[in-house]
Amino acid sequence: MAQDMAKEHPDCAYCAKGELVGKFGYEICELPSSTVYLFKEQSHPGRCIVASKHHVSEMLELSVEEQNAFLKDVVTVANAIHKVCSPDKLNYGMYGDTGHHLHMHLVPKYKDQFEWGGTFAMDPNQLKITDEAELEKIAAPIRKAILG
Amino acid sequence: MAQDMAKEHPDCAYCAKGELVGKFGYEICELPSSTVYLFKEQSHPGRCIVASKHHVSEMLELSVEEQNAFLKDVVTVANAIHKVCSPDKLNYGMYGDTGHHLHMHLVPKYKDQFEWGGTFAMDPNQLKITDEAELEKIAAPIRKAILG
Repeated sequence: MAQDMAKEHPDCAYCAKGELVGKFGYEICELPSSTVYLFKEQSHPGRCIVASKHHVSEMLELSVEEQNAFLKDVVTVANAIHKVCSPDKLNYGMYGDTGHHLHMHLVPKYKDQFEWGGTFAMDPNQLKITDEAELEKIAAPIRKAILG
Repeated sequence: MAQDMAKEHPDCAYCAKGELVGKFGYEICELPSSTVYLFKEQSHPGRCIVASKHHVSEMLELSVEEQNAFLKDVVTVANAIHKVCSPDKLNYGMYGDTGHHLHMHLVPKYKDQFEWGGTFAMDPNQLKITDEAELEKIAAPIRKAILG
């Protein structure tokens, strides 16, 4: 499926993967219905993206089984972030007005720290990590918690 | 359960209901696991809140069955908003860093209109509707689509 998606939607970061998704995401792992990325902008330590394996804009375009499978993956990643990062609150956001590929931002918030008490910026653009070793250091325990 | 929650959490709008929730929400209907509100600030026409019937901060605090029931309600309301409002994109957001009561914002976005292409403000504070008849006029078709 992945190769087909890359061919069909070469401009979609979540379909094409590689360099396109690498601009903002570091792959943590695959789940049954999604690919999980560490968001390279780590103003919120542990922030991740759960991207559907389907190139759809809306939950509505998925079957009920596919919706449930995607949401199950979201909950799995949320639980892993809680376990590894112990945020004081976990925020969830799905936007993508112009992107056409369903994905959920999972954004750990920490009391009295960055953006505590409000929503969160799509990209705070303040603390982007590009070093692969550093990204892997953050991703590894989250991957372990996800995959059990 | 509702009366107990109001007693146990009198300062929580979603538990106490009445005047507290009425500051920002107009009740559309009850669902098995949630109460659905029209968000009185209607900068995004059709914006709703799906509030859990449980006073918990995190999905993690619910059983898997309760999580699934809450997410099922969210999908039901999302589908109703699509049917009634035909947004170009529906956004989903759970924040509540300081509120301690799980709820999902469902925010219809319309191409090239308010906040198109980005996230959404917790409260844009620009177009709050207080007239009950006007609120009911918006709520009625959404209620009908939810309850079938």
